Amino acid sequence: MRPPNVLYAQSGGPTAVINATAAGVIQAARAARGRIGKVYAARNGIIGALAEDLIDTGRETASAIARLRETPGAAFGSCRYKLKTPEQDRAQYERLIEVLRAHDVRYFLYNGGNDSMDTAYKVSAIGASLGYEVGCIGIPKTIDNDLPLTDVCPGFGSVAKYVATSIREASLDVASMHTTSTQVFVLEVMGRHAGWITAACGLAAERPGDGPQVLLFPEVPFDEAKFLARVEATVARLGWCSIAVSEGLRRADGKFVAETGFQDAFGHKQLGGAARLVADLITARLGYKHHAAVADYLQRAARHIASRTDVEQAYRLGAAAVRLALAGRNAVMPTIVRVADQPYRWKVGVAELKDVANVERTMPREFIDADGFHITPACRRYLSPLVRGEDYPAYRNGLPDYVRLRNAPVARRLARFDP
Amino acid sequence: MRPPNVLYAQSGGPTAVINATAAGVIQAARAARGRIGKVYAARNGIIGALAEDLIDTGRETASAIARLRETPGAAFGSCRYKLKTPEQDRAQYERLIEVLRAHDVRYFLYNGGNDSMDTAYKVSAIGASLGYEVGCIGIPKTIDNDLPLTDVCPGFGSVAKYVATSIREASLDVASMHTTSTQVFVLEVMGRHAGWITAACGLAAERPGDGPQVLLFPEVPFDEAKFLARVEATVARLGWCSIAVSEGLRRADGKFVAETGFQDAFGHKQLGGAARLVADLITARLGYKHHAAVADYLQRAARHIASRTDVEQAYRLGAAAVRLALAGRNAVMPTIVRVADQPYRWKVGVAELKDVANVERTMPREFIDADGFHITPACRRYLSPLVRGEDYPAYRNGLPDYVRLRNAPVARRLARFDP
Repeated sequence: MRPPNVLYAQSGGPTAVINATAAGVIQAARAARGRIGKVYAARNGIIGALAEDLIDTGRETASAIARLRETPGAAFGSCRYKLKTPEQDRAQYERLIEVLRAHDVRYFLYNGGNDSMDTAYKVSAIGASLGYEVGCIGIPKTIDNDLPLTDVCPGFGSVAKYVATSIREASLDVASMHTTSTQVFVLEVMGRHAGWITAACGLAAERPGDGPQVLLFPEVPFDEAKFLARVEATVARLGWCSIAVSEGLRRADGKFVAETGFQDAFGHKQLGGAARLVADLITARLGYKHHAAVADYLQRAARHIASRTDVEQAYRLGAAAVRLALAGRNAVMPTIVRVADQPYRWKVGVAELKDVANVERTMPREFIDADGFHITPACRRYLSPLVRGEDYPAYRNGLPDYVRLRNAPVARRLARFDP
Repeated sequence: MRPPNVLYAQSGGPTAVINATAAGVIQAARAARGRIGKVYAARNGIIGALAEDLIDTGRETASAIARLRETPGAAFGSCRYKLKTPEQDRAQYERLIEVLRAHDVRYFLYNGGNDSMDTAYKVSAIGASLGYEVGCIGIPKTIDNDLPLTDVCPGFGSVAKYVATSIREASLDVASMHTTSTQVFVLEVMGRHAGWITAACGLAAERPGDGPQVLLFPEVPFDEAKFLARVEATVARLGWCSIAVSEGLRRADGKFVAETGFQDAFGHKQLGGAARLVADLITARLGYKHHAAVADYLQRAARHIASRTDVEQAYRLGAAAVRLALAGRNAVMPTIVRVADQPYRWKVGVAELKDVANVERTMPREFIDADGFHITPACRRYLSPLVRGEDYPAYRNGLPDYVRLRNAPVARRLARFDP
């Protein structure tokens, strides 16, 4: 009898290290030869699983899989697609089980954030009721760091390292030129609902006078007068000011600043873009020349400056998911458990998907200082180990030599199905 | 008799490697002990020289100067300040010579771009006429890569490596998600008058299907219909499209697209921001979901991914400037001379400042392909060696450990002067 197969799928926004998790899954499964047959990947996430659009990772060389560990993006394709509940759309679940059955998949590993853990949880429950046993393991991945029950989410540490490094560098730039040029620099970062990435920018400010001096968290309602006073005081003291702003900055009424139809002081309608809004406000009210950067996808794809801690955690959670599956577990997610801050030690734990699904972890208030514009020492203690260590990709012709997989399709066995 | 002193000044926008040039100057001067006395730096560029606000670099440790080589920003401060001609404002030149004389400075090394080479040239001429001999050496520095008579300008290679790496990474991200999320990614880069940085983004596209597929150069008038057709064809072929746009993109009438009062297809007035404009246009006309990033200062401060070639060239031109000064040269600039493309070999040459001042080198037309949206093989041959090699800074607590100098002031000997 041939051993059962694994189906691995990537979900939601890519990170710099989601492929490190994929490498962990594939290498662990290859090492378990005899107990695991094929490792399939769903093309474009759950959509590929529903469409029976599967990839045979066995067609990739060992070297390609090793390089996957240092390649950003989602190598098998990902998607934003939330399954309805089994009550709302039973046909989708039946189709998914049909695909798993057709390809003798007994282990379904779903690598994503909140919505994906919810999907994995639903799938974990439906197999048995449809008469097909499948071990369903969620693997955490999100730059937003907002999953509960894990100390950190793979993907976050590398974004944190990137944004902290970037704003440290840009702050040195603006500090150099403030007497005759730009006084204020603003960097917009991701994290629409949770301020973890904004907080990470604060790591760059280690000594008095270091930038950034002001952080605008999504958790702290934007108080224009207080903010302008803080910027003015900083420029009075140093001659310049460096600011990190979350794309999800909100007003006291809970609306996103960048989506409220808010007009800036020049009377221009804002098209979105928290950084530009904040920067224009400063120039209009305080007269300082500004520059603004929007990191956007650069931040979550920046494998060239990944955190080694993050890469290792991403990789090991992939391998752990395979071990959990082989141990017969279902409806669980491997987690990162922090053992000690300093020196940092961590281990892999396990959480139940039912406790993870649809729970969002925002920044604890004690991580934001009293005036709401910076991080506390407790926050720094939490964040600092997560950005430690470098894990440089190989370079070719001066640029990172990221792998492009063959992604050879698996022959279809079922009728077409349009998700 | 004490040997004469050096005055070194940084000018214009910082780069990731201008401090490597400073390290080259200071280490070469220290090695010439007996022939050179003190190495002073002007605080905030030429303004500090005029204000007699000088820094004694002799107060910095050897280790601090070594770390300067891997620290971005302008460590002594820089400025945007263009001297008038001696005919327009003779008092400024007299003051400058007075400061040099008061501090026994016989070598003035000015590290900057076009305007600065012009300033250095003027200073080189005025010393003799005011009865004070000073050897005036320009040292090239500009991310814009627009100085003539040098194969490349220090600072450019590192920006090139950063933008090419960044758009390669972001392209992998958008390629991962295009079936259900973003189809078009736009990265805005610097280079208002010359497309060198935009061209460097093109290095990321090495294989068919690689991003970026479209480059919008400042040298090529923006043709909206042709551009949209190109984007549409790319999305039809690949499902996604990655675009680099110069902040200085212009219309056929020569006006900057981002500054024309141009309204986008939604009827919103543009506040500036070529990336947002282009991205909004695509969504309005073609219906694709987009993401846009603005690299801004991140690109020119990104010492964490500096090109080793660039760092070495920046450093060696600093050292070469000291050698030229000691050889009694005046009104010259050390240059990079390309000896061979492949394998890349280069040497230091010398140009006359009179031939450099106020000449701007834009991209040759043969570096832009026939349809105006990408680079040619000749351009790739030129650019590729410039991004080669990595030169990572030291890290502490997971972040680059950039040096902050003491910048101890030199005692003033003259009356105040407000430039």
